[in-house]
Formats: sequence, C-alpha cells, structure tokens
Amino acid sequence: MFGKKRKLQGLDAITRKLMAIVGENEVLYKKEDLISYECDGYTMYKGMPRAVVFVKDTQQVSQVVQCLNKEEIPYIARGAGTGLSGGATPLGGEVLISLVKMKRMLHLDLENRKAVVEPGYINLKLTQSISDKGYYYAPDPSSQYACTIGGNVAENSGGAHCLKYGVTTNHILGLEIVLPSGEIVEIGEEGVPDQPGYDLLGLLTGSEGTLGIVTKVTVKVLKNPEAKKTALAYFDDIDDASQAVSDIIAAGIIPAALEMMDEIAIEGVESAAYPVGHPRDIASFLLIEVDGIAVGIDDQIEEILTVCKQNNVREVKVAKDEAERSLWWANRKMGFGAMGAISPDYLVQDGVIPRTRLPEVLAKITQISRKYDLRIANIFHAGDGNLHPLILFDASVPGESERASRAGSECLKEKRGRD
Amino acid sequence: MFGKKRKLQGLDAITRKLMAIVGENEVLYKKEDLISYECDGYTMYKGMPRAVVFVKDTQQVSQVVQCLNKEEIPYIARGAGTGLSGGATPLGGEVLISLVKMKRMLHLDLENRKAVVEPGYINLKLTQSISDKGYYYAPDPSSQYACTIGGNVAENSGGAHCLKYGVTTNHILGLEIVLPSGEIVEIGEEGVPDQPGYDLLGLLTGSEGTLGIVTKVTVKVLKNPEAKKTALAYFDDIDDASQAVSDIIAAGIIPAALEMMDEIAIEGVESAAYPVGHPRDIASFLLIEVDGIAVGIDDQIEEILTVCKQNNVREVKVAKDEAERSLWWANRKMGFGAMGAISPDYLVQDGVIPRTRLPEVLAKITQISRKYDLRIANIFHAGDGNLHPLILFDASVPGESERASRAGSECLKEKRGRD
Repeated sequence: MFGKKRKLQGLDAITRKLMAIVGENEVLYKKEDLISYECDGYTMYKGMPRAVVFVKDTQQVSQVVQCLNKEEIPYIARGAGTGLSGGATPLGGEVLISLVKMKRMLHLDLENRKAVVEPGYINLKLTQSISDKGYYYAPDPSSQYACTIGGNVAENSGGAHCLKYGVTTNHILGLEIVLPSGEIVEIGEEGVPDQPGYDLLGLLTGSEGTLGIVTKVTVKVLKNPEAKKTALAYFDDIDDASQAVSDIIAAGIIPAALEMMDEIAIEGVESAAYPVGHPRDIASFLLIEVDGIAVGIDDQIEEILTVCKQNNVREVKVAKDEAERSLWWANRKMGFGAMGAISPDYLVQDGVIPRTRLPEVLAKITQISRKYDLRIANIFHAGDGNLHPLILFDASVPGESERASRAGSECLKEKRGRD
Repeated sequence: MFGKKRKLQGLDAITRKLMAIVGENEVLYKKEDLISYECDGYTMYKGMPRAVVFVKDTQQVSQVVQCLNKEEIPYIARGAGTGLSGGATPLGGEVLISLVKMKRMLHLDLENRKAVVEPGYINLKLTQSISDKGYYYAPDPSSQYACTIGGNVAENSGGAHCLKYGVTTNHILGLEIVLPSGEIVEIGEEGVPDQPGYDLLGLLTGSEGTLGIVTKVTVKVLKNPEAKKTALAYFDDIDDASQAVSDIIAAGIIPAALEMMDEIAIEGVESAAYPVGHPRDIASFLLIEVDGIAVGIDDQIEEILTVCKQNNVREVKVAKDEAERSLWWANRKMGFGAMGAISPDYLVQDGVIPRTRLPEVLAKITQISRKYDLRIANIFHAGDGNLHPLILFDASVPGESERASRAGSECLKEKRGRD
C-alpha cells in the first residue's frame, strides 16, 4: 500500500481521477507507453496523447467522458488503431479512450440474422465464430484480422466485398452510444433499423466518434453463399484491365469482389508474407470473385473471363480450391502492409471515381509519380472505382515526406476531375 | 390589367409576396382550392393550409423559404401527396410548397448508372424512360405510378422489391437542398456518395423536408436482371404462410420480393381494378419473385415452392409470361386503394418486426380486430417483416374513427412485443 501510494504521488489530478474510474493499471500516462498511440494506421501525422484509458464497460465510458468534459480535456475514441484515415490520430494532449477491452459478443440470434457485440470485438472473429453454422459478417476491410467492429462503425469501413454487399452502414441494425454529456442512448429497436425519425444510425456510422462513442453494436449476419468462384486475370496493359472492369459491370454482372493491383503493388505483395507467384512482368492483375447459388456460377465466371479475353488479357486462371482462393486473398489483403517490404514509408490516399474514368485517373497518377519523383503503387477496389494510391517515400530523406504529402493531395484533387 | 389588380386587392401581404416570386397563378389561397391539400395519403388527420405555392426551380424554392421564414410562417414541402405517414399533412395555417412542377430529368449517365432528376419527377417514369436501354430504378412503392422521387427521398420509401434491393436511401448518390435559411447546398460530389464528413445524405433521406427541401436528386439506376420468375402460393392457414416466409429466408434465398396478403386484403384486391382470380376461400397468399442471371433461376423458384409445399400450401403457380406477372403485381399494388372497394375508410399502419414473430403478431392483430369490432386487412412485405395492417372503418358512424385510431395504436404497440 505504501509503495502504491508513492507510485501515484507524482501524478496529476486528472490521471488520478481516470484511475479512480477504470483502475490504476488501465491508464497509460508515461511517455514511453504513449509513443505507440501517437498515430493510427495513417502515419503521416502524429500527436502525443495525454493519456490512454482502457475502459471495460459502458458505465466506465460514460464516467470517463463526463470527467473529461468537466475538465475540458479533449478525447478520442480508439479501436485497434488500424484505420488509414487518421480517425484515432491525436493532435496532442487528448485522452485516448481505448475500447479494445470491450471485446465480447453479447448476443447471437442467427434465426433473425443478427449479433450484438461490444465495440472492441474483432471483425474477423465474428465470421469465424459463426462460419460453422453457415453464416458470416460481410464487411471485410483488409485489416479484418485486427480491426474492431466499433472502429468499423466509426470509419464506415468498406472492404473488397463491398462492391456487392455494401459498406458497414449497410450492416448496422442498432447502436448503443455514450454522448459527450455521458448520457447513454440506444438507437434502433429490436435490431430493426426502420424507426420513426431521422436516420441517426447512418449519421453516427462514419462519424469517427465525434458525435458519441459506440459501446454496443447490433450487426446483420448473412448466410454463406452456396458457392464461390475466384479468378485471376493478368494484363500486359493497365488500360486493358481498366476497360475490362468497365465492361464486366456494363455486362450487368455484379461480382462479389473486383480488385486491381498494378505492377508496383504486385512487386510489394510478392515480396511479402503470402507470395502467389504472380508473373512479375505484367502491368496489372484483376482478382475477381463471384458468389451466389451453385447453379450457374461457372457460367458467371466464364462470362467475366470472356470479357477479360476481349480486352487482351494475357492469362486467366480460376482458383482450384478453397486453399488457393485463400492464398490469393491473403496476398491481396497484405497489400498495404506489403509496401513495407519495398519502401521505408508510404502514404495511402482513399478516393472514389466513376469507373469509366479509371484509365484517365491512372494515367494522371503516373504523371504525378513522375512529377514528384516518387513511386506510386495502386491497389484498389476497381469494381466500385475506389482508388488507393500508395505513395512510397523515405521519411529519413529530407523533403521526401513533404513531397509525398503534396503528391497525395494532387492525387485526391485529380480524382475530382472535370465531371 | 385593371381587372387583375382588383382581383388581387383582397389578398393579404404574404400571398402577394408569394405571388411576386412564383407568379399569380402558382399560388392557391381560396378555401375551395385548398381542401384537397388538407391531408396526404394518410387521411386520419387533416389541417387547412394557408396557401399552396407551386415552385418551378431551386431559386424560387429558396426565395419562398426566405420569405416565409422572415414572416415566421411555417411551411411544408409536398410531392404527389401519396405518402401514408402524414409527411405532407398540415396542422393548419402552413404554406405548402408543392414540388410537382419541378418534374424534369436533368441528366442521364447510363455508363455510370446514374440519373439526375428534379424532386417532382414521377418514380415510375424513370424506369419507363430507361427500360428500353435495359435499366431501371429499383425502389418501387406501390404508389409509384404517381409518387415523386423527391417525396420518396423525404419518406425514404420502400416497396415490394426492397427486400433484395434496399429502400430509397440505398439508391441516392447526391442531393441539392434548400436549407431553412434559403441557402442552396449540394451534398454528394460527382454522384459519388463516399464523401469526407458525416453521412448527411442518409440523414436527409427520410427527414420529410424538415431539414431542408430537396430540389435535385441524383439516383442510382440498375441494369435489368437477366431473368425473373414470379410465383403465387395459396395457403389455407395463415400460420403456414408465415412459416414458409421464415423458411424461405432461412434457406439462404433472398427473393427480389416476398409479399403476403390475408383473406380480407384478397377480398379487396379482387373487388378492385385488377382482379387475378385468386381463390376466395384461402387464408393467405404469398407473391414471390426471384431475379438474377437466367441460369439457375428455375431452380431457385422451385426451391422456394418446395418450401411452400413443406408448409401445407394448397396450390402454387408460376407466372407463364410477362403479362401474367404484370397483372399479379398490378393486383398487389392496388392493395391499399382497393380497400375503398370494401370499406368507406381505412387507416394504415406501418411497422417492422423480426420475421420469426410473424405468426404471433398476426394472431395479436386478429385479437385487436375482435376487441375493437373492426375488420383489419393485412398486406405486407413479409420478406422483411414489414407489416401494413389496414384498419377498415366508416368515419360517418359516430365513434368509429376514434376506435380505428385506438386499434391502430394497439397494432403498433403489439409489434414492439417482448423481444
């Protein structure tokens, strides 16, 4: 007891108040402990938080928020910290409220296709825990092995399969949130989103915790599709790949996923943990998946590959089994992380363009790459025109960070185009 | 000129100001002209508006709103007035801003699957104008021959096919709105909804004009499905029909539509404009549609009909051609209007329940019907548990309106249940 008291003597009043709510061991306040919280997956900007508080239930969130508001100390909710848009990045001096310890599933009702989880519940765990019963959770950001459902709500996360299945907002039935006042409110009733009044579920989803902190999430779960087919199409010319994307959608097929990588991105993923053996001299590949009922699924993938052939594809192949399919997806989902294998630093941008402008915008990105003398890899959800240019740079070279930042801004400007 | 001046002499200053903005002939102010604007499709409550103003462009909406705000006169936006939830019902004394004369299509971009329309553009007209090119607009409220896209945005309208395709909010890419200040703002850029910041598109959709008046709508259009199959399943016991609904969804099939009618509803539609010849002694029918690629579609409908057979269906039939399919849908979509053929008045409620509670809630509605001695017809989007109990009454019988209103409230309470 004496030792413990002494340990706390140097602490300021706020830290002690927070400790009184969550417990001494649930507050980080030493500089060495805070360093890894200076940014999230978006590493271009950093700020030192004042403290990190690990909450374990809704009441604690409410008490922490009330305490901080009373003291006029800003706070930021944080999930796994994998987000690429800086939603959990401190400017400096904030208290981070970490929700990773609120990680339980509270309720599962497969008959009505819903699950209730705490915000720190890991995305992939949901699918893993219900897949043996034939169900899954659709939104699949590439970070799904680590990212949390609460973080997905905060960022309205998409994923490779949002082309067909929509983004997080399309899968949320109800939320419990703690308002800045500390008040706890529930939105959505009986897991039914069609409520009188304004669509607050939609407003809150993607609001990055700025309107309230999500403490409970009711999500839709879906029945596994009866069948899946996954194909790779290798192109010598990236414009042909872009045109194939347009033509597949124009043919009236909605693939479950339609992903594209350019040659720099391929260099990255082939140097990382899950190499597939993609040809290293191609300009681009498409990773295409269709799902649905078993009857006719072979025809669907054949129709798509025919469109690829009409667009000068070099080679196509269909995954021969689930193991091969999984490897292809692991390779794709390593994409951003894999940039570490070929570049000390990278900056990722996230923009959406009409699919018909793909070739034009890709050409502009190439120009931007030359202008700033920085390599830019492209990994993207081509089916819905969702670009992710990855600007590779070395922060230890004076001026490169700034150049990367300017190149990134120019990429985002370019996407607005002349439409 | 002299006559005209004299005509306007008796008018108050507000009416003259409104006329100065939109033109003399575009303002209704006489009691006899206003009577049909006392309510919309929800006829239980009525209020006499002060005036109705027909606007023809965004600037006029802005000027009218500014004028009314300056004078502190409340206003209500109104589309075709077909809404069943009272979104355009005056309390008394408001100015109705009618958007039916803003009815043009402004832009069509099939390559990027979008159309830009004015708010008074009629829902069905959109599909009709692009169907020859192989496209359609998915949200299909039963009033689609008359209701406007702007009204659909205000009410976040659904329809028979929202089981598979979602409601209006899932099909809106951008909005131009006039704020209460008269300021004109655009939400959504290049028709791409994935914008930085809060999801204001979602917030505005379904807000009934209370946050702003929509003056331009960018919607998604979809490629026509390659094939459709439509079936009718007649049941002797309504619980069997409910169970079939649960079992179809549990089988992992998502029909494009899954509609249910009970025997009173069938009596109505068979007495109205599009009789199908449904057996008159059944308890309920399901109208089921699947769509998608042609291959496998027969298997899908067969699988559904097998589920019906496992639930004691009396008879099933598949539409033999597009004409028969159209008749079935016209019959279904006449549902609410058809109540006029069997009852002087009706009150419709709109509630959503988990599908698994269908039999229980239908039994409760039957009890409520007995308790208040009023017939209640059920027409509903069974696939997503969206009930529409229609309480039949005669407003000319003293006390019946009140009884209907109490019965309606009890139906809505019942849907909340014990979940």
